[in-house]
Amino acid sequence: MPIHTAFVMERPYEEIEIGDSASITKTITEADVVNYAGIIGDFNPVHVDAEFARTTMFGERLAHGMLTASFISTLVGRCMPGINGIYLSQELKFLKPVKIGDTITARAEVIGKIDEKRRLIVKTTVANQRGELVIDGKAVTKVF
Amino acid sequence: MPIHTAFVMERPYEEIEIGDSASITKTITEADVVNYAGIIGDFNPVHVDAEFARTTMFGERLAHGMLTASFISTLVGRCMPGINGIYLSQELKFLKPVKIGDTITARAEVIGKIDEKRRLIVKTTVANQRGELVIDGKAVTKVF
Amino acid sequence: MPIHTAFVMERPYEEIEIGDSASITKTITEADVVNYAGIIGDFNPVHVDAEFARTTMFGERLAHGMLTASFISTLVGRCMPGINGIYLSQELKFLKPVKIGDTITARAEVIGKIDEKRRLIVKTTVANQRGELVIDGKAVTKVF
Amino acid sequence: MPIHTAFVMERPYEEIEIGDSASITKTITEADVVNYAGIIGDFNPVHVDAEFARTTMFGERLAHGMLTASFISTLVGRCMPGINGIYLSQELKFLKPVKIGDTITARAEVIGKIDEKRRLIVKTTVANQRGELVIDGKAVTKVF
Repeated sequence: MPIHTAFVMERPYEEIEIGDSASITKTITEADVVNYAGIIGDFNPVHVDAEFARTTMFGERLAHGMLTASFISTLVGRCMPGINGIYLSQELKFLKPVKIGDTITARAEVIGKIDEKRRLIVKTTVANQRGELVIDGKAVTKVF
Repeated sequence: MPIHTAFVMERPYEEIEIGDSASITKTITEADVVNYAGIIGDFNPVHVDAEFARTTMFGERLAHGMLTASFISTLVGRCMPGINGIYLSQELKFLKPVKIGDTITARAEVIGKIDEKRRLIVKTTVANQRGELVIDGKAVTKVF
Repeated sequence: MPIHTAFVMERPYEEIEIGDSASITKTITEADVVNYAGIIGDFNPVHVDAEFARTTMFGERLAHGMLTASFISTLVGRCMPGINGIYLSQELKFLKPVKIGDTITARAEVIGKIDEKRRLIVKTTVANQRGELVIDGKAVTKVF
Repeated sequence: MPIHTAFVMERPYEEIEIGDSASITKTITEADVVNYAGIIGDFNPVHVDAEFARTTMFGERLAHGMLTASFISTLVGRCMPGINGIYLSQELKFLKPVKIGDTITARAEVIGKIDEKRRLIVKTTVANQRGELVIDGKAVTKVF
């Protein structure tokens, strides 16, 4: 039978298991950083001033930590659980910088369920192309 | 004596006091939500599908929680402490939805200093135009 | 004989006459203002804070004057003279505010030529949908 | 006493002194030029056609002069004087091209005050990363 795959899922609470995971990978481009800086008005020179960035210990422009972290939102919104969910909280530790041109993989894994509140506890991490952890954290979502 | 105002500040650790605060206010427009969704690929229909959003309890499209939270990054990057800082961690509780057209004010207030590590503990909140808290949280930054 | 029309012209100096004019009309949308504010980092609340704007004498958000003026650049770059020109100077007087949703028409008219320097003196104006002049000014371009 | 830092200032006319200045620095990226070209429709090939640009005396794509000039608007809107001001006029001389990847610093300095009209005369310049002046000019703003 043909399968229909929706871009955004709607996963019933009962079908979600501990260990379920999801990931998304994207190269963080200069355009991403410039556009994100413009939305939020964060013109810290480490993000938008290539000359300044060259003088830092990083040697080049970095992505905003909250831009990198935003890809976790994509996983929550798409399949953890997706349409039928609400994002309740997010903890983030920024462990390493992400440079323009780095390719990041955000990953979310269900590590707990609170049945009476229909909540998912989700381990949320972001790694770079060398497999180094750049963000560690934890999300809690509610499933309707 | 004439004053020079830099777009992004660089506040020495020693000059930052508990109680220092900063804020930024912006209307979250459809363009912001569309642009942000495009950067991170979060096409949850509650954000990008006006027809679907009409059928939800909210009645219209919402901003991504992490978009609203991102304005906290702007405050950290601009003056908490600004150029001479590193964002170490962020805790976020998403308390209420932000609709397209809402005007949010992100606020950051220094509530603690850890002198031996040169760290700032910053209370980070976002409120809407009715003064309702939509995000509560806490950031930790390191000052060089 | 079929005519080929290029999006951007290349008008020889000798063929340009005093009285030649060009215009472009566009509605200034919320997206235009938000995106422009993001490129340049100008988050003056009169442009990006709908709540604040309601309290001003204008009653709503305004476009940045330099955004409205930027359409003059389009006329210079496209046909005054186009590819074979250099923009030397621009004078601008901001006469009236442009609100989000206003439809503006930028107009450029050659009012002088300096043959020995191959320069065009161009009267540059922008009017709104009611025909009110919102920007008056003058450009000088050099033609190769 | 704790300090509150607003993203956009509101500087009383009386407190503004001749010699007060402000600056903003940003690398002009390909994304900036593309986004700006899209807002205003200025597709002059020197800005958007890399193949054409290679054949010019510049060797690569340039930023629109009015894009570079737009950062002056940011300074006027943020602190010359900020919220409580109106932009009355701007004169611009485009002295040198800005290439994609150049890092520009826009600078505004109060050089005159007209007390009876509450106006500021502001010297407005933009320099590149080599300190070369790329735009020279003058703004007049009114302070409420």
